[in-house]
Amino acid sequence: MELISIEDVRAAAADVAATVVRTPLLPMPWDDGLWVKPESLQPVGSFKLRGATHAVARLDPAVRSRGVVTHSSGNHGQALAYAARAAGVPCTVVVPEGAPQVKVDRIRALGAEVVLVPPARRLPEAERVAAETGATLVPPFDDPRIIAGQGTIGLEIVADLPDVDVVLVPVGGGGLSSGVATAVKALHPSAVVIGVEPALAADARDSLAAGEVVVWDVERTYRTSADGLRTNLSALTLAHLRERLDGIVTVTEEEIRAAMGRLAREARLVVEPSGAVAVAARLFRRDELPSGRTVAVVTGGNLDPAALASVLAD
Amino acid sequence: MELISIEDVRAAAADVAATVVRTPLLPMPWDDGLWVKPESLQPVGSFKLRGATHAVARLDPAVRSRGVVTHSSGNHGQALAYAARAAGVPCTVVVPEGAPQVKVDRIRALGAEVVLVPPARRLPEAERVAAETGATLVPPFDDPRIIAGQGTIGLEIVADLPDVDVVLVPVGGGGLSSGVATAVKALHPSAVVIGVEPALAADARDSLAAGEVVVWDVERTYRTSADGLRTNLSALTLAHLRERLDGIVTVTEEEIRAAMGRLAREARLVVEPSGAVAVAARLFRRDELPSGRTVAVVTGGNLDPAALASVLAD
Repeated sequence: MELISIEDVRAAAADVAATVVRTPLLPMPWDDGLWVKPESLQPVGSFKLRGATHAVARLDPAVRSRGVVTHSSGNHGQALAYAARAAGVPCTVVVPEGAPQVKVDRIRALGAEVVLVPPARRLPEAERVAAETGATLVPPFDDPRIIAGQGTIGLEIVADLPDVDVVLVPVGGGGLSSGVATAVKALHPSAVVIGVEPALAADARDSLAAGEVVVWDVERTYRTSADGLRTNLSALTLAHLRERLDGIVTVTEEEIRAAMGRLAREARLVVEPSGAVAVAARLFRRDELPSGRTVAVVTGGNLDPAALASVLAD
Repeated sequence: MELISIEDVRAAAADVAATVVRTPLLPMPWDDGLWVKPESLQPVGSFKLRGATHAVARLDPAVRSRGVVTHSSGNHGQALAYAARAAGVPCTVVVPEGAPQVKVDRIRALGAEVVLVPPARRLPEAERVAAETGATLVPPFDDPRIIAGQGTIGLEIVADLPDVDVVLVPVGGGGLSSGVATAVKALHPSAVVIGVEPALAADARDSLAAGEVVVWDVERTYRTSADGLRTNLSALTLAHLRERLDGIVTVTEEEIRAAMGRLAREARLVVEPSGAVAVAARLFRRDELPSGRTVAVVTGGNLDPAALASVLAD
């Protein structure tokens, strides 16, 4: 299987520069060796804007004019809606029932059409829309353009902290981790890139151990609060992670919640559960991680205000 | 009275580069013409790190070794403690009774000595410490080095958004607004720089109208939740603002609170009341402001978790 290259990531960086925020690395006050990459500050509240912008930019203009469609637990949907609006093309987003209402509302506010279906019906419904309208299906992660777009985070990490030792990156479908590992290992081969998953959705850990995609069904992964990390790997992302990821650790729901509280109180960042797992790993799994200058990717900040208020009350 | 120049601000930028975060401009999802400069993301949670770092860097080494002392409602105290620790010199911070406990705790955590006094006793106590120990008094705003350090925010705004039309900047003692106005007007004279104050601490508005420093006493200014903006101007900051600020608007407590909620829910930023006034002005005083591409400086994010939870419940 062909993997993306550092040149693909560099090309993506040029495509996304006008649309995404160049997030800084933020030193954390409680840990002299920890910096956070706050992708929660992107216009749509997550790193997904990088891949979506790159994917839309690479479409042939005649194809692009027929629009784009995707299936998403929310953040990729918002990102694609934002990227499509910027490019002036129609967008349909198929969303699983049970996704946070705040995410659905925001996709609609960006001018996209939202179609709600049971979780297992997401992909077939998106394929149906694509067949009916001629729109291009832009998947959340299983696509070289998406992986390259997310990889721009790795470029920026190495540019801002050239002697980084460890990069901690959340693993859901594996698009982000594949892209970041590609960029970091190419530019700074001695750095270690570690994936982080919720213990309640540790399908990537199992897949890497088995050497093939191990599927955790939706009933099982829906137990974690980290709704952006419930997805299983694809063959494409597994191939990237087998080649380029140095390891994987898991964190509990309590640890995720504690990391969210720490980030709100001490780093002044509003972070969703999926976004907090890398910081949770540094806080609570330090014995399983290499030492040294560490960057944790904080992927997103879209959560209901009541959920944030609840975390602050801990 | 001699005002600082753009060259002073450029010199400060070189001094602070290694210590402060280069904050990005964040587009706000609810307003196509609004960007936020999130200084709440600095290591100590506020822009004050810029001025403090510059002031410490400019001390003669022999003087610096005897330490620094200041009086502060909290954010300047934290900033000076951080800058002093980085430079390896002792630091004493005189804090008014009634300042948020979270700020006092953080100053102590940075290794500084904290002395609590009634608000009116702040300056005399700091002067006493300076006389007794040989430490240099680094005031929160009434100092050209502090003004130049805060002005680096203006340099970054113009670098990132060269065709900015309007800059909204909170006014407390006037150090930040003096520095930002100096930089923005020098680099981009057609831009308009507007100060923002709480209506319950509108001493700068009154001072600009009178052409001299009008003092609002502490009983009066302590009514606002924006504890960082209770301070009156000095002769030095008033001289800068008369020359370089284009106007001033005031916002209510309800508007400040609404802006804090909006920033937490839609920009994923934890912002203290003082930090939210510029965004409140754009949200609620738009008829008093020039139109165009607007940057609001979000100055800080240090607030008690309970206060943030309360805002989220609105």
